[in-house]
Amino acid sequence: MSILIVSTNKDIKPWIKEFLQKDKTLDIEIFPTVTNKNKITMVLMWSKSNIDFKEYRNLKCISSMGAGVNHILANTTINKDVAITKIVDEDLVNSMWEYLLTCTMNVVTNQYKYINQKHNQLWKQQLSKPINQYTIGIMGLGQLGKYTAINFEKIGFKVKGYSNTIKDIANIKCYNKKEEKEFKKDVDILINLMPLTKENYEIFDLEFFKSLKKDCYFVNVGRGEHLKDDDLIIALEQNVLSGATLDVFRNEPLENHHPFWNNYKITITPHSASITNPSSVINQILTNYKKIHKNEKILNQIDKTKGY
Amino acid sequence: MSILIVSTNKDIKPWIKEFLQKDKTLDIEIFPTVTNKNKITMVLMWSKSNIDFKEYRNLKCISSMGAGVNHILANTTINKDVAITKIVDEDLVNSMWEYLLTCTMNVVTNQYKYINQKHNQLWKQQLSKPINQYTIGIMGLGQLGKYTAINFEKIGFKVKGYSNTIKDIANIKCYNKKEEKEFKKDVDILINLMPLTKENYEIFDLEFFKSLKKDCYFVNVGRGEHLKDDDLIIALEQNVLSGATLDVFRNEPLENHHPFWNNYKITITPHSASITNPSSVINQILTNYKKIHKNEKILNQIDKTKGY
Repeated sequence: MSILIVSTNKDIKPWIKEFLQKDKTLDIEIFPTVTNKNKITMVLMWSKSNIDFKEYRNLKCISSMGAGVNHILANTTINKDVAITKIVDEDLVNSMWEYLLTCTMNVVTNQYKYINQKHNQLWKQQLSKPINQYTIGIMGLGQLGKYTAINFEKIGFKVKGYSNTIKDIANIKCYNKKEEKEFKKDVDILINLMPLTKENYEIFDLEFFKSLKKDCYFVNVGRGEHLKDDDLIIALEQNVLSGATLDVFRNEPLENHHPFWNNYKITITPHSASITNPSSVINQILTNYKKIHKNEKILNQIDKTKGY
Repeated sequence: MSILIVSTNKDIKPWIKEFLQKDKTLDIEIFPTVTNKNKITMVLMWSKSNIDFKEYRNLKCISSMGAGVNHILANTTINKDVAITKIVDEDLVNSMWEYLLTCTMNVVTNQYKYINQKHNQLWKQQLSKPINQYTIGIMGLGQLGKYTAINFEKIGFKVKGYSNTIKDIANIKCYNKKEEKEFKKDVDILINLMPLTKENYEIFDLEFFKSLKKDCYFVNVGRGEHLKDDDLIIALEQNVLSGATLDVFRNEPLENHHPFWNNYKITITPHSASITNPSSVINQILTNYKKIHKNEKILNQIDKTKGY
């Protein structure tokens, strides 16, 4: 039995190092050069891939290398008996919080604007208002959404949360799908932290943006497919939104010449909001690796019908 | 008796509006068009000016329009009997905290780097470490320094403080001048919040920067004269410092063609870290305006020998 790592645009050396530090006898293969497909019982997967899982007859589990799994679900060759797992990790959650704090503070204190002004050597003070006059709206109240909502509230922001099924979080007003209109009202900074599902594919289109408070700022740390790219450009041109910070994209790395690169109202980060630290998650992966061979219940398995 | 406002590069309309809302009978003049110099008993001053205070025989008090007073002290025509006051304001303190949180988070989550990468359409994840692995060093532990130190500690940073006379702040290691070397050790982000004095004029020179931990990040919200501009450029070129965010400059607005504008490792903000909100400080100014005519002890008077 062996582990196969499938990752086209990520440096996997730190992962291999961590695995071998934990267990020197581990048999690890790197896609696409696989010596023995029949020996593979577990796959670690970072990004979308054309790998044909039907060729891996003894595969028992595909583990995401992060919190999202839709890059795995997008592959249609996975046998229904193969379990899919995600990473659940405190460092991952904290990294997301720190990222989102950065984005919101850049909006609050106008640093995104000042950084743009510098290119034109423009010295101009912008109007500002303090944290406690900002309402942050968080869509998606899973592990990441809940943690960030609580932390934003702690440092003084007003926070509203939105999720498919209504959640109960202290000091956070929570809304479900039926109350979407009520949720969106008075949101100054909208953060997408939803898992990708059929229902919310391209949910962020021009109509959605127009239904927000004027000059709302948009932060996407969910998935690229949540967003209709062209509509974001229009919403920024028409001053429907004041700006956007994007960490996730339909295709990653974001392709050259994509109009996002040259739009001065868009800040781009390379899917870095929540970087999985191999050393802090290797144990949960190895635990599952042992469990699948003993037919034990594995950790952090997702529900394929829900998609998360 | 009347009030004179001296401000060359600030919009003073909101100030006049606030004054007249409080008291319609107030007599306000705007430098340099002064109709009756002998009537002026109080001056409000935002920035350096060549005004000759000897011509104002009945002047009793010069009030800064912010927390700093060195733009007032730089004027040598002030009679020794004229009191100098600064603004002490909670909003001002909070605004500084929000500004500094923005800068440090941009360093922690690499957003300054990613914003630079965008200009080259570069998709590259940078190494990162969480807040609790960062040490922030704050030089200057007055009202602003103390408040920000406490808040940085609350959200998880390690914080060290430095001041002329040793301070005692819970959970913050405080150092004085004799312990400067010990203070600087292991500081990842250095924040200058000192008042400008003869002793610390151009304290931030190449030698100082070289005495810091390699790749330290520098934030200047003190005064432009604390910094030797050319030495900052050299320190950045030689990778002594990893970057700098500057809110204050020797001449403001920062002059065209100053090398700071085109240095990609420098972030420039237009003296906006701590913007005095007229509505929240007008009362303390008017209180002093009444007190000076009754010969009562005024609020927030500075010590001219100390310079703050």
